[in-house]
Amino acid sequence: MGRVTARRPVLRLTPDGERQRPDTLAVEEPFEIRVDGTPLTVTMRTPGDDIDLAHGFLLTEGVIADRADVLTARYCAGSDVDGMNTYNVLDVQLAPGVPGPDPSVTRNFYTTSSCGVCGKAALDAVRLATRFPADADTATISARTLATLPDQLRDRQKVFDTTGGIHAAGLFTADGELLAVREDVGRHNAVDKVIGWALLAGRVPLAGCVLMVSGRASFELAQKAAMAGVPILAAVSAPSSLAVDVATEQGITLIGFLRGNSMNVYTNTHRVVTSTDRVLAQH
Amino acid sequence: MGRVTARRPVLRLTPDGERQRPDTLAVEEPFEIRVDGTPLTVTMRTPGDDIDLAHGFLLTEGVIADRADVLTARYCAGSDVDGMNTYNVLDVQLAPGVPGPDPSVTRNFYTTSSCGVCGKAALDAVRLATRFPADADTATISARTLATLPDQLRDRQKVFDTTGGIHAAGLFTADGELLAVREDVGRHNAVDKVIGWALLAGRVPLAGCVLMVSGRASFELAQKAAMAGVPILAAVSAPSSLAVDVATEQGITLIGFLRGNSMNVYTNTHRVVTSTDRVLAQH
Repeated sequence: MGRVTARRPVLRLTPDGERQRPDTLAVEEPFEIRVDGTPLTVTMRTPGDDIDLAHGFLLTEGVIADRADVLTARYCAGSDVDGMNTYNVLDVQLAPGVPGPDPSVTRNFYTTSSCGVCGKAALDAVRLATRFPADADTATISARTLATLPDQLRDRQKVFDTTGGIHAAGLFTADGELLAVREDVGRHNAVDKVIGWALLAGRVPLAGCVLMVSGRASFELAQKAAMAGVPILAAVSAPSSLAVDVATEQGITLIGFLRGNSMNVYTNTHRVVTSTDRVLAQH
Repeated sequence: MGRVTARRPVLRLTPDGERQRPDTLAVEEPFEIRVDGTPLTVTMRTPGDDIDLAHGFLLTEGVIADRADVLTARYCAGSDVDGMNTYNVLDVQLAPGVPGPDPSVTRNFYTTSSCGVCGKAALDAVRLATRFPADADTATISARTLATLPDQLRDRQKVFDTTGGIHAAGLFTADGELLAVREDVGRHNAVDKVIGWALLAGRVPLAGCVLMVSGRASFELAQKAAMAGVPILAAVSAPSSLAVDVATEQGITLIGFLRGNSMNVYTNTHRVVTSTDRVLAQH
């Protein structure tokens, strides 16, 4: 965990006075993903779980669909001014027969439609790219189980405990069993890390699973859920309009403001079971 | 404000039961910035203040340094499937003599150093790119004034009031006077919008000003402050390690966890005045 957090001096001011003390911060470092030696993207991330992050990114951008699509993933030998390996550049070698990324597609995922750039084009791009449509997923989850997820996620946020400054994403079964949690200063990275973990564990498509995020639900997070075949996406805070639209179109159940025993179910409400009666009524 | 928020049906579940009602969400739509007809970037943003956003983005990416560097900024005629203008593509025409963006630089701002990709390289890239170094800025601000900023920002977050799902950035004088507030689903967009406003108002470099953000302070936000000559950056939540490092190196005073009457001053603490004695001691 050495590089996950860092100490910096801070002057703490309160009504009781001021004092100098060390503070623990979430580390942010650039991370470059290369495919077969060619730089593809740079993201600012918290070091750790980089292999998961690269696999998750390549899956949610449509470059790979299976762990067998990656032959090797190795840190490059790039060094900093002190001659130390930065461990910030990862080269992913694709398996024979797997086509490399189309730079124009991966750079601007939602601008491939001929009608120019608009929300509709963004939705079309996701629909065309998704290899694991969630709409036929028959999973259901009880509201009671959903209400347990935020605390389960929070209990595993080790870096948040010490820094207060990091996002988290968790994967759960529909029975509320925690499968994995990942943290990152970038919420999209936390999601890519946990989805990459699932890919390497042979769990993609994530049928019957819940992806829970600590903050808001944007288009980008809903898109990543769609690309990984996640049927249920839950967020502690608000979704955006386009996150709701992509969830509607992709057959994903999107839950927002999941706090205490309350929640907003925005799309595909049939997967959320509120009482025995309702379960019986559906069958 | 028509396109800033959107209504979607929601199933609200609480211990008291369930009910169907409309919910107001922050709109998220793709936005493409073109320079002299060539696509430069696509960001997912909340519509509104697009001209500010484009100016702020081009300033903080080092393409322009003055409002006179832009000749015109016009929406393109691109239409959606219904033949309506999307108002999601803006073409910026640079003034004669202003060189266009270097695609390699603007795409990966912090990978231009020869030592590969690392935090040090990211800091070096900002130092080389900044045209308005803040380290000589003599502004000071009282802790008492700083403590008023979160509520002032919050009082102006009109879209947050209805959606609960949007970031805000505000510009203040060191006396605590609010200059401008902008909201967006992307925190970097909220910052670009408010900095773009300042550029168009002839206020860049933002000497003597405070940039206040509603969430966390990442490297990207500190970089944008550095590019606009902002001497004081304040955030409601935690900064990352690299945000602190860039603030240290660029002479920016970085304040985090600014809540109630308390705050953490991470860098360049000399600009924060806690008592009359301390002011007198400094002069």
